[in-house]
Amino acid sequence: MTDGHIVRRQSDRGSYDFASAAAVLDAGFVCHVGLVQDGEPVVIPMLYARDGERLLLHGSVASRLLRELSGGIPVCVTVTHLDGMVLAASVFDHSANYRSVVIFGRARLIEDPKEKARIFDQMVEFMIPGRTQDARPANRKEANATTVLELPIETFSVKQRAGPAGPPGKDDPADIWTGVIPLAASAGKPETEQDPGRIPDYVSAWRPDARRLEDGD
Amino acid sequence: MTDGHIVRRQSDRGSYDFASAAAVLDAGFVCHVGLVQDGEPVVIPMLYARDGERLLLHGSVASRLLRELSGGIPVCVTVTHLDGMVLAASVFDHSANYRSVVIFGRARLIEDPKEKARIFDQMVEFMIPGRTQDARPANRKEANATTVLELPIETFSVKQRAGPAGPPGKDDPADIWTGVIPLAASAGKPETEQDPGRIPDYVSAWRPDARRLEDGD
Repeated sequence: MTDGHIVRRQSDRGSYDFASAAAVLDAGFVCHVGLVQDGEPVVIPMLYARDGERLLLHGSVASRLLRELSGGIPVCVTVTHLDGMVLAASVFDHSANYRSVVIFGRARLIEDPKEKARIFDQMVEFMIPGRTQDARPANRKEANATTVLELPIETFSVKQRAGPAGPPGKDDPADIWTGVIPLAASAGKPETEQDPGRIPDYVSAWRPDARRLEDGD
Repeated sequence: MTDGHIVRRQSDRGSYDFASAAAVLDAGFVCHVGLVQDGEPVVIPMLYARDGERLLLHGSVASRLLRELSGGIPVCVTVTHLDGMVLAASVFDHSANYRSVVIFGRARLIEDPKEKARIFDQMVEFMIPGRTQDARPANRKEANATTVLELPIETFSVKQRAGPAGPPGKDDPADIWTGVIPLAASAGKPETEQDPGRIPDYVSAWRPDARRLEDGD
């Protein structure tokens, strides 16, 4: 992770495979969106959904950054999962297991209110599958208050590290514990606000890293 | 999260308080580093440590991106924690609880090998407090193979959302479950590679979000 993310095709940690990118994206919720503003970089966290070969983003029409993105300026969107801390015998060899995808491109503004409302549904379903059975769909006023963007997942790279630290070097202590502490996002007990008598199954069974996805790829 | 991150002082989700920024940084490991390369944005994930009012970053001297950063070009570093999914009665009002900090600045290259070796220790201690008691410190060759950067935590913003979705609107279903599904990073069972007989306490008791920190601020 620490040696940059623009993988060469030779890199043993890099990949240009779409299915790998999709798997990383489908396990997440938050992306980091980078753009250039007045010549300087800005990186903001945003929720996203993947729909086939496009990434969906949205936000308030009042947001200056979203307005700039909707003009089709170059954007870089990165999603990262930290999977474990890798404890080696030497400080230098400590590392992390992770999966990440970096997408480069230009976003396109979605303007049709009906399509925007459909995308709101897609975004909620991507994060909480089943939820749109129950929640009220967006109306035209809500669609108009929101900027919706799509970014093609065409130019991207996937990078990951998995596995143990590797054996100690000859100068390293031989009696030191080495290994991996796995890390994962986990869901806590749902906190009920409005209680209709029972918690829906799609809430109580929800797991961040293993959501059922509709499009199947 | 979706309405951008450049908070105005009036924003109810924004803050310019250093202690708030430090708390967000101290709960994380991975930052997203944005820079401008050939006029276009690039966002890469990197491990980091906070040391007082500076952020520490490192990577291979072979990395072109780190070489560019070490020249003192503008950089934006963002750390985000996703704390929960917020399920409202309407699709439109679905949201996420989160904490994030965005730092703007220019990185400075650390060149002294002894200082670099000290920083390796600091980075490992930031992530796994106690580990440097056991692991071999970096030597001069390892220090020379690594680019180490510090970024002042001076120009930054903190943004967060916490709490429930709020009551349903008049057009929303009244019999729908609403609430929050909390999310947090959690550690799995340590996976031993080299086994000296027992797992150290600082490994078995380690929790990603509640590390003991040395500098106390």
